[in-house]
Amino acid sequence: MARWEPNARDRLESAALALFAEQGYDATTVAQIADRAGLTKSTFFRHFADKREVLFGQDRLVEVFTTAIDAAPPSVTAVECLAAALEAAAFGFTPERHDLAPLRQAVIAANSDLEERESLKRARLAAAVAEALRARGTDELTAGLAALIGVLAFSTSYARWADPANQRPFSEIARATLHDIQACAPAFAAGSSGLAELE
Amino acid sequence: MARWEPNARDRLESAALALFAEQGYDATTVAQIADRAGLTKSTFFRHFADKREVLFGQDRLVEVFTTAIDAAPPSVTAVECLAAALEAAAFGFTPERHDLAPLRQAVIAANSDLEERESLKRARLAAAVAEALRARGTDELTAGLAALIGVLAFSTSYARWADPANQRPFSEIARATLHDIQACAPAFAAGSSGLAELE
Repeated sequence: MARWEPNARDRLESAALALFAEQGYDATTVAQIADRAGLTKSTFFRHFADKREVLFGQDRLVEVFTTAIDAAPPSVTAVECLAAALEAAAFGFTPERHDLAPLRQAVIAANSDLEERESLKRARLAAAVAEALRARGTDELTAGLAALIGVLAFSTSYARWADPANQRPFSEIARATLHDIQACAPAFAAGSSGLAELE
Repeated sequence: MARWEPNARDRLESAALALFAEQGYDATTVAQIADRAGLTKSTFFRHFADKREVLFGQDRLVEVFTTAIDAAPPSVTAVECLAAALEAAAFGFTPERHDLAPLRQAVIAANSDLEERESLKRARLAAAVAEALRARGTDELTAGLAALIGVLAFSTSYARWADPANQRPFSEIARATLHDIQACAPAFAAGSSGLAELE
């Protein structure tokens, strides 16, 4: 029978990240992670399918983003949908996760397979956001551009939030970041370069 | 000694794509591809490292894009850099490749590993474009946004060009597509939604 272990998930995550950082992701086994956390392998497997899931979770972002977009009233613009999705995503970025975020980022940056995983996760998120916007009647290119802006806003917000010096909550950072990206948009409008005349 | 085989690369590519479409990518061997093309396995390996390289080439896009951006005069805007990069990329999109493109797209769409590969290739291109723009002094977020717009312009142009009904050259399609994306940009500018007031 499974014994109840207080904070098992958090303890396993901290232990895993510490070991990944110390001895590398590839060299770390589930047995070592469980041992460092003072728990058993079977407790590990009650919380995570494998060691990669410690880093990438169950990839709930797609669900959170698309649910927020689907729930937005029809009158809401694509940018407002993105703002709602970022707001909905904020629940996952707790102070406890903030303390582990720099370690997580360092582990991913040190391993090209994990970087590819992170990159694919973001590409999948962009595809899902574009699809959710098209389902609301947003045209193809606007939906594609909005999805990329949403993912850029998310990944920039995450990096800003994960900074060890940061003390602002994710939702506040996400609003400011989306606003910063919006401030760049006019530079890409037709007529802002000589391109319009080429057509 | 290697015998000179006329159009060996094109013949191998056509044979490979036909076999991937007929019997699936995973089930196709290099021996079968060489056989279908009327060539030897060693001829295949003089042209491609493996069967995946038939689909993804040697990934020269990163080099083509970054060379074009690096070569642009300092006064050139980020959008103009993207236009120059797309123009430079057009050389690879010949009428011969156009005939094979729908087959290539169908093979990739049928295999999630290959879709991931295509997706990673684009993520890598975006990262390289952002880096090349930052090296010109473009600020972080504008470079990130420009890179995503460049990759969206590229992938949309590729899909439009690859359409069997299309007869326009890639460079013309790319200019029009970038212009179409620029036409979406004002919808994302600050003030176009209620977001600006949130800050």
